[in-house]
Amino acid sequence: MAEYVLHCMAQSGHSYKAALMLELCGADWTPKWVDFFNGETRTEEYRKTVNEMGEVPVLNHNGKLLTQSAVIMDYLFEKFGKFGWENEDQRREVLRWTIFDNQKVSGLIGPLRFMRTLAKTGETEVTKFLDGRSKSALAIMDKHFDGNAFAVGAKPTIADFSLCSYLYYDGELGFDVGAYPNVTTWLARIKSLPGWKHPYDLMPGHPLPDAK
Amino acid sequence: MAEYVLHCMAQSGHSYKAALMLELCGADWTPKWVDFFNGETRTEEYRKTVNEMGEVPVLNHNGKLLTQSAVIMDYLFEKFGKFGWENEDQRREVLRWTIFDNQKVSGLIGPLRFMRTLAKTGETEVTKFLDGRSKSALAIMDKHFDGNAFAVGAKPTIADFSLCSYLYYDGELGFDVGAYPNVTTWLARIKSLPGWKHPYDLMPGHPLPDAK
Repeated sequence: MAEYVLHCMAQSGHSYKAALMLELCGADWTPKWVDFFNGETRTEEYRKTVNEMGEVPVLNHNGKLLTQSAVIMDYLFEKFGKFGWENEDQRREVLRWTIFDNQKVSGLIGPLRFMRTLAKTGETEVTKFLDGRSKSALAIMDKHFDGNAFAVGAKPTIADFSLCSYLYYDGELGFDVGAYPNVTTWLARIKSLPGWKHPYDLMPGHPLPDAK
Repeated sequence: MAEYVLHCMAQSGHSYKAALMLELCGADWTPKWVDFFNGETRTEEYRKTVNEMGEVPVLNHNGKLLTQSAVIMDYLFEKFGKFGWENEDQRREVLRWTIFDNQKVSGLIGPLRFMRTLAKTGETEVTKFLDGRSKSALAIMDKHFDGNAFAVGAKPTIADFSLCSYLYYDGELGFDVGAYPNVTTWLARIKSLPGWKHPYDLMPGHPLPDAK
């Protein structure tokens, strides 16, 4: 059995953050598919034994369970010494962008992409709300990447893996990431890291079976 | 001048997290009112000189600017040694709940309360969406506080200040926090900490002047 087991599924950008970091660290890891679309994360069983927050990803390392992508990546930095910080100021900068991502980037683009591409709700007041807020966040990122190669400092960190995740599901978001040129260049920069893979090549569960 | 200056306003739950921690740490601090409702955080000036993310709170400590409530509280733990963690596992548990809060509690209840009470949009598809998701998060918290006095360990931490913030604006949320009995007991527990104050007694800008 692999040393690290990641409970995840291909469609989850939050899972992708952890999967990408495991891959780029060269970890001995394997994904364990979670049947999110049939409600596995909402069961009593899952909430009792895997994650009380009812979410993916969850990392199992020798029986120790870690949840929240930011926590998993923090743990992996401790283990592998890669993609983290060099001092306390940098650690807080990474935290700053990771929180911003969870609240305003992945936290909004995730549900937006879900509605548009997976639940297929069509355009509604809710997609309009999420679309507007997502674009405000992307504009802030685009300004930041004008002159900054990565989110924090001169090297890729946990903050980049957090921010980039849903943006690689291009064609599923319902807006054009290319409208943000500095974000686009930064995404290409991460993509060129040795070992980079698309979420659908890193985690199981794609494509979805046809809806019943 | 006070040692710590917090850019904030009374209506911001995110600001309250930092303000509450400053107060409970006994810091020499003062709030600096931000005219959010007239667009101050959206100006070029604010984004260039105060916070590129266009948000409150921002902490100024001897000219050093820190943004994101989680980052500010992390910094204050370094300075005061209170409300933090005792080891790396606890630090990650605090991070786990803080991320959960920013994405699913404050991150959703904040905009919901804004729409219902400040922008007065009335009930819409968007408030319905935010209401449903907020209540799912509260149910997860309610289960957690069944048997746990605080979010992490036996003492109040940064994670509690993060999770509780918007819930003290009772009467402004459009739902009854009392429907979550363990959350209610936990809120009373934090309220009983020596020095606790309501957001409106800790930060300036309340009540709002009448809308023009």
